[in-house]
Amino acid sequence: MRFTSEQHLDDVLERRFTLGDVPGILWTPRPASAPAPLILVGHPGGLDRMHPRLAARARHAAREGFASATLELPGAGERPRSADAEQARADLQRALAAGDRVDDGIVDRLVLPLVEQAVPEWRAALDALLPLPGLGGPVGYSGGVVSIGVRLAVVEPRITAALLFAGSYVPRVIVEEARQVHIPLLVLLQWDDEGNDRQMALDLFDALGSREKTLHANTGGHTGVPWFEGDDANRFFARHLR
Amino acid sequence: MRFTSEQHLDDVLERRFTLGDVPGILWTPRPASAPAPLILVGHPGGLDRMHPRLAARARHAAREGFASATLELPGAGERPRSADAEQARADLQRALAAGDRVDDGIVDRLVLPLVEQAVPEWRAALDALLPLPGLGGPVGYSGGVVSIGVRLAVVEPRITAALLFAGSYVPRVIVEEARQVHIPLLVLLQWDDEGNDRQMALDLFDALGSREKTLHANTGGHTGVPWFEGDDANRFFARHLR
Repeated sequence: MRFTSEQHLDDVLERRFTLGDVPGILWTPRPASAPAPLILVGHPGGLDRMHPRLAARARHAAREGFASATLELPGAGERPRSADAEQARADLQRALAAGDRVDDGIVDRLVLPLVEQAVPEWRAALDALLPLPGLGGPVGYSGGVVSIGVRLAVVEPRITAALLFAGSYVPRVIVEEARQVHIPLLVLLQWDDEGNDRQMALDLFDALGSREKTLHANTGGHTGVPWFEGDDANRFFARHLR
Repeated sequence: MRFTSEQHLDDVLERRFTLGDVPGILWTPRPASAPAPLILVGHPGGLDRMHPRLAARARHAAREGFASATLELPGAGERPRSADAEQARADLQRALAAGDRVDDGIVDRLVLPLVEQAVPEWRAALDALLPLPGLGGPVGYSGGVVSIGVRLAVVEPRITAALLFAGSYVPRVIVEEARQVHIPLLVLLQWDDEGNDRQMALDLFDALGSREKTLHANTGGHTGVPWFEGDDANRFFARHLR
């Protein structure tokens, strides 16, 4: 892991890094006090495009004393494209434009290779990040891609709580895998998300195996999550990462 | 309105009253400071049986400076029974025991007369309570019976925010009426509520016409609402009653 830039803001230190050839960003609270629990911040890919929203979430989490980190997703931003994933994305967009039901095969081809490649990268990021001064456990996961969050919650024991954004297509095998998730969960659903299948999100919530799971559904579209959910997220992680 | 008893606790003053022949309870924060916004606390009927839970909610709300008040429901507690309502309740219990689908007619016979009778009583309680020293507007509604909450939100302009417990049967006409609700809403749903129809609750949430509406669904049965929802309720009302 190599740090490539750092920026001191009032409330956080933002450091960009590369892990192998994967770019990432680490935000730590300022002033640093006790070792901060770490939240892995998920997103749909495209770190530069997502940066304003990711940084806002990281700064909000820093108010509660949490560090945040994220990685670029495979095939997004400056990372090499996969021809198969690009084809699946084009098929998805064609189906949506035609108003067709999205075929399970398209979702599988789009999401499963992403999960297979991303999850080991995020676990490697934990190996590299957690020994850094100022960081400690336990670890949370917050955001989309929800399938990555589910797989991480199943395979990565250092993750002890997750806030999942139910805003993307979920392969059936991941819905099945969700039954093996047992950590506390907060699931966010935008009720009027035009690019999402509400019933699929409710089915995923139902399938998740955790004894403590809460769904917060709000009116509005994909990017219309209300501001107070940021506070709710902090309180959720404060309950489980302290 | 006539006060019949009062009890000074550390954090609230609890006063029982009768309004005509309807018993009720008023909780006001101690020490009293500025006039407190008032929350009407809904429940399934049976004030004495419900008292521990209602008093706990009122004391929790008092931490945020809110007063709370509740009335006995028609046909519950010491109030005279209605033969029609008793028959509808018996029909409902028979259908549930037999594992049958609950007929719309049963739900209408059980709930609609209750709404028709209770809503004017709760509005009369507002007329009597709001002029009392220490109480002010605006007013919130919190709890079940959800159909009473929906009707009050439609017809009573003094109610400016409502937390609805989606834990009871809802007549179709009330689901239609829900489209006319426009105040901010927080809807609580117990995901594994054995006595509730989850899809009916989701349909009701979908129908509610408010631009700001949030669903909090939690694992667990009817009475298993997690403790942190009490804090969330206070924050919801703090956003809208201040």
